[in-house]
Amino acid sequence: MKIGIVGLGLMGASFAKGFPQYHVIGYDQQPAVMKQAFDDGVIREQASSIESLIDQSDWILVCLYPLATKEFFITHKDRFKPGQIISDIAGVKALFEDLVPNDGVDYIFIHPIAGRAKIGYQNHDVTMFKGANCIITTAPFNQASNLAIVEGLLKELGFGNVSRMTMKEHDQRIAYTSQLTHAIAVGLMNSAKDLAFAPIIGDSYRDLTRIARINEVMWSELFVLNQEALTAELDDFIHQMVTLRNALSQSNQTELEEILKRSRIKREQLP
Amino acid sequence: MKIGIVGLGLMGASFAKGFPQYHVIGYDQQPAVMKQAFDDGVIREQASSIESLIDQSDWILVCLYPLATKEFFITHKDRFKPGQIISDIAGVKALFEDLVPNDGVDYIFIHPIAGRAKIGYQNHDVTMFKGANCIITTAPFNQASNLAIVEGLLKELGFGNVSRMTMKEHDQRIAYTSQLTHAIAVGLMNSAKDLAFAPIIGDSYRDLTRIARINEVMWSELFVLNQEALTAELDDFIHQMVTLRNALSQSNQTELEEILKRSRIKREQLP
Repeated sequence: MKIGIVGLGLMGASFAKGFPQYHVIGYDQQPAVMKQAFDDGVIREQASSIESLIDQSDWILVCLYPLATKEFFITHKDRFKPGQIISDIAGVKALFEDLVPNDGVDYIFIHPIAGRAKIGYQNHDVTMFKGANCIITTAPFNQASNLAIVEGLLKELGFGNVSRMTMKEHDQRIAYTSQLTHAIAVGLMNSAKDLAFAPIIGDSYRDLTRIARINEVMWSELFVLNQEALTAELDDFIHQMVTLRNALSQSNQTELEEILKRSRIKREQLP
Repeated sequence: MKIGIVGLGLMGASFAKGFPQYHVIGYDQQPAVMKQAFDDGVIREQASSIESLIDQSDWILVCLYPLATKEFFITHKDRFKPGQIISDIAGVKALFEDLVPNDGVDYIFIHPIAGRAKIGYQNHDVTMFKGANCIITTAPFNQASNLAIVEGLLKELGFGNVSRMTMKEHDQRIAYTSQLTHAIAVGLMNSAKDLAFAPIIGDSYRDLTRIARINEVMWSELFVLNQEALTAELDDFIHQMVTLRNALSQSNQTELEEILKRSRIKREQLP
């Protein structure tokens, strides 16, 4: 099996490195990155062009930002060949809802719930997939055998739970579990008036702001692409914070205890 | 040196276990816990009464909830003897501002920035102090030599940074780094409509909700005791979230990028 990986940044290079048993062809718009990946043994072959990568690959994994990924699908639609599976790793899927492959080609959209705070090829790290959750969004055109192939490849990489759901459900759930979470970390970090508090932080502050070191270009794109669902989640969360704030300002310790207890019980139920 | 530890819950037992080189006398209102701590070698001696512990100890470390700690200081004020140092571990200090020791006695208030999600003796874990930050709040009556003794004992336990500041500064800074952080985790957890999202969570969601498993009795007490400072921090944070929410609802990607970039740069500056 030949795997073509487009984009050798943090994610693309991590995927490439995870498939040493396959012939991985890599492409990156920066020739120096592509050469480095080849020299490091992360890919077996440098693609001479995107077209050459497309023509040779059984599975094409596009590891670009969401809008660039969609552009890739549109630009190369008529170059894809029957039997090929084309996948992406974008964190939102609504933008792909109008994409339908030509006969015999399959698009299988995946979202690895894994990442690292630092971006770029040099930070690639295949261990990020170990035991991580992953989502495959399903479309009416998907062939069951292709879904099984992609799921198998993801399991080979070490992913734990691979869930299947529609694109719409994906975007709604991700708005809460991932996007709201990142927005909150940003809000907490931006609430800091100065950094004089650094010597007194604990694990809780460190944990909540780890992802405040955010890739602003990619995440602002993801946020806007999932505007409706994320706005609704932000509104719900802000409402929770205002409720807590008001109980506090009224010194209503009974209500505060209720709010905190609800949180504790929910968290204890999470596996 | 004899160390008297009052309250052998998660924190008290962890402190006790960290001082095997000293004669540690322990007291707990539950005799079974005190006996268990003795049988486990966590304490060397079970105090027959609080009074007996006070009479024998050079350093008394009160590991109770904040209001119970204050009550301890008030109730036993005239039993403390010259040369004794009495400390607490409460997460707020304003409530102690009117406490002044009798001549020759010293009160040194400390706040270990460490903890565990599960409470009680059975979860004690001295490793939580290793490299953790700690605060000593200073009062005009403190003797420099006593501050040095307590700081030395904390260093022996493995604490990293031991900062000194006034009680007022402590409560203001902790409102942001610790209390707001816990309130946010609670708000995120309580925003969950159900738990069907469990199979798709990532490290970011896990990190942000770890402390959502909160001790609601202690933390609602801490929140109310620091009402003014925490309310102000909550207002600032809610303002940050509303700003982000409005940029998103207007699809203002440039402003979103600016907001996220500010967060990234601040986080990168944190040691």
